Amino acid sequence: MDEQSQEARFSYKGLDLTIHEKARLSLLASLVSTPKGLSFGDLKRLCGLTDGNLSRHVKVLVEAGLVEMEKGYANNRPHTHCKITRKGEGQFLNYIAVLEKVVQDAAVLSDQIGHVSALKPE
Amino acid sequence: MDEQSQEARFSYKGLDLTIHEKARLSLLASLVSTPKGLSFGDLKRLCGLTDGNLSRHVKVLVEAGLVEMEKGYANNRPHTHCKITRKGEGQFLNYIAVLEKVVQDAAVLSDQIGHVSALKPE
Repeated sequence: MDEQSQEARFSYKGLDLTIHEKARLSLLASLVSTPKGLSFGDLKRLCGLTDGNLSRHVKVLVEAGLVEMEKGYANNRPHTHCKITRKGEGQFLNYIAVLEKVVQDAAVLSDQIGHVSALKPE
Repeated sequence: MDEQSQEARFSYKGLDLTIHEKARLSLLASLVSTPKGLSFGDLKRLCGLTDGNLSRHVKVLVEAGLVEMEKGYANNRPHTHCKITRKGEGQFLNYIAVLEKVVQDAAVLSDQIGHVSALKPE
């Protein structure tokens, strides 16, 4: 690889920090898997988040336009429902494309370790 | 999916935050691609980091035992050389395995979008 093409080769500029944060990545992955949306209770369970963290990170995603929130009532109790937006779907797919690149880059390491006999059980 | 198997299905517990931080992910990906190690100058260029960010994040990786640093001289100038450790290689591979899962989970979205005609150009 010449010096030019090495320029910031591993900077992964496309790793949008709004999405990369672990709790928000969990939230988006959950919402992507359920297009009709999820309740706060579902999200809390699926992402293993506390109430405080859930509210905080959903707020960031709503402000970024990646998620929309609907407040209403279910069985006479307040019920918050979240859905990924069209913008959220697009940005999440772009983010995932960069993750795929990270995984591909790391394949070099798997190959190396595969050839280091000291790491293999005899 | 029953309720039990949905429990924290998207929490991605294996996404070690020491590695997940974007600059440190860049640094490890660079070092993985170059087993003989890299200089501070190389890392700065490959990861697109400032001097301050580079020092700060390398320090975190060294303290976690994922990277080792060697200070010496090259051409009569101070020269810092970094290498990923065996522990770093192992933890990075574990991290990458979780990323692969995130990418697989997101494949659901690509499939959905592939079937939404409104998103396709006519």
